[in-house]
Amino acid sequence: MTRAQLIEQIHLKKSFLCIGLDVDLDKIPKHLLEMEDPIFEFNKQLIDATHHLAVAYKPNTAFYESYGLKGWQSLEKTIRYLNQKYPEIFSIADAKRGDIGNTSTRYAEAFFNNLQFDSVTVAPYMGSDSVEPFLAFKDKFTILLALTSNKGGLDFQAQDVSEDRQLYQEVLKQSLTWKNKEQLMYVVGATKAAYFKSIRKIVPDHFLLVPGVGAQGGDLQEVCKYGLNKDIGLLVNSSRGIIYASNGTDFAAAAQQKALELQKEMAVIMETFL
Amino acid sequence: MTRAQLIEQIHLKKSFLCIGLDVDLDKIPKHLLEMEDPIFEFNKQLIDATHHLAVAYKPNTAFYESYGLKGWQSLEKTIRYLNQKYPEIFSIADAKRGDIGNTSTRYAEAFFNNLQFDSVTVAPYMGSDSVEPFLAFKDKFTILLALTSNKGGLDFQAQDVSEDRQLYQEVLKQSLTWKNKEQLMYVVGATKAAYFKSIRKIVPDHFLLVPGVGAQGGDLQEVCKYGLNKDIGLLVNSSRGIIYASNGTDFAAAAQQKALELQKEMAVIMETFL
Repeated sequence: MTRAQLIEQIHLKKSFLCIGLDVDLDKIPKHLLEMEDPIFEFNKQLIDATHHLAVAYKPNTAFYESYGLKGWQSLEKTIRYLNQKYPEIFSIADAKRGDIGNTSTRYAEAFFNNLQFDSVTVAPYMGSDSVEPFLAFKDKFTILLALTSNKGGLDFQAQDVSEDRQLYQEVLKQSLTWKNKEQLMYVVGATKAAYFKSIRKIVPDHFLLVPGVGAQGGDLQEVCKYGLNKDIGLLVNSSRGIIYASNGTDFAAAAQQKALELQKEMAVIMETFL
Repeated sequence: MTRAQLIEQIHLKKSFLCIGLDVDLDKIPKHLLEMEDPIFEFNKQLIDATHHLAVAYKPNTAFYESYGLKGWQSLEKTIRYLNQKYPEIFSIADAKRGDIGNTSTRYAEAFFNNLQFDSVTVAPYMGSDSVEPFLAFKDKFTILLALTSNKGGLDFQAQDVSEDRQLYQEVLKQSLTWKNKEQLMYVVGATKAAYFKSIRKIVPDHFLLVPGVGAQGGDLQEVCKYGLNKDIGLLVNSSRGIIYASNGTDFAAAAQQKALELQKEMAVIMETFL
């Protein structure tokens, strides 16, 4: 998918909502557990119920890997279903990968070629040649961890690396010197809306993936105030708040309702902003 | 596996060799490609030929993931074979994972419970609560990326975070304040032997996993000079130099020969040092 296609979808749907598919068998409706592939069935019904309200879906690979081979199979079925039925949707493998050059290419092949995701999240610790192999894939996006919303996120990301710069800012700055930097997006934790101002000074044009609105306590208005750019430039993720809105047979309808509330809020913000 | 059991194996075998199982279908002997699971067959024969010379095996998950479901299956078969036939061997999932708390627990479950690896490599960028969930698993080890041997390794790891400390040193220091820190090991790139001195000042007792001896150009003598401690405290990895020693039907014997050369060198070093 191209950036222009993503932006077009955002305007069509009046939404920059990303739905996190972090599927936990202990939390999904009981009646699904009797099915052959409960994880896929859960995802399929969620996607069918919310595809007109969201522009992106983001399975976190940890949940799938924790179920071993069967989990990996559910992930594969989910992304194939999504790509086949809703090719206009932007897909994110939230995998937080990263390794030395040749090995990063293998991860990129896994997510871009084999599974056919549009994008993958990548950790920056190993530097330029651990990320550039991902950026080499045409019309695929690499979403670099910049500032994360977890408690320990600041342990290293907020270390001062010079008088006027913390590590996450250094990551942003250096990443702009990498080959195919226009294929970058960044993960920016929503619980730190004040940081968006400093981040937009360094990367005014790139898309930011903002997890943590909802269960992790971010505030959509605050995030948008500092994070929006002329192309919207945000993908705001909600996982648990949507997918576990109900654990009864009405789970998909309940998820749709929660997604609709967020989409409506986004539509108002887009109207005000544009 | 416990630390004491690992140390016992090192003394029994006079070896601190780790063999990296980074399997590339384009590089393995052609005759294996006709078999049902060429990757597993390659690993099985390598392990059978070298298990008495190595104390650890380290599959890098990127290679397996790049082959999709079949690759994940080959990984599963490999670790099950290793654990069943050679339970005394230390296994490392070189996965470089890391996510927010609950999600890191899922990765830990994937590698420690589901696949039954003894250890997994983890990236530190997301801080304490992204690593501690791994450390909560008893008799399992978390191998934290500290200083990596790739070209871009210094991009962020060598950033000065205070007058006397670079980021990788800060990672080491902070990690010593984490819960169950005794279950930590560290990845330290072998191409930077001079750094071992400063690293051993911070973590004198922990095991260091040293990739890059061989193909990546590290020097075993140099590494040992600064890296060894009273329990040896090193796992030195070689991948391509061993597993691709030959691409003919004699590949396992050729790998054994290369592993033997390294083991002999290690035996001499251990004798000199102890």
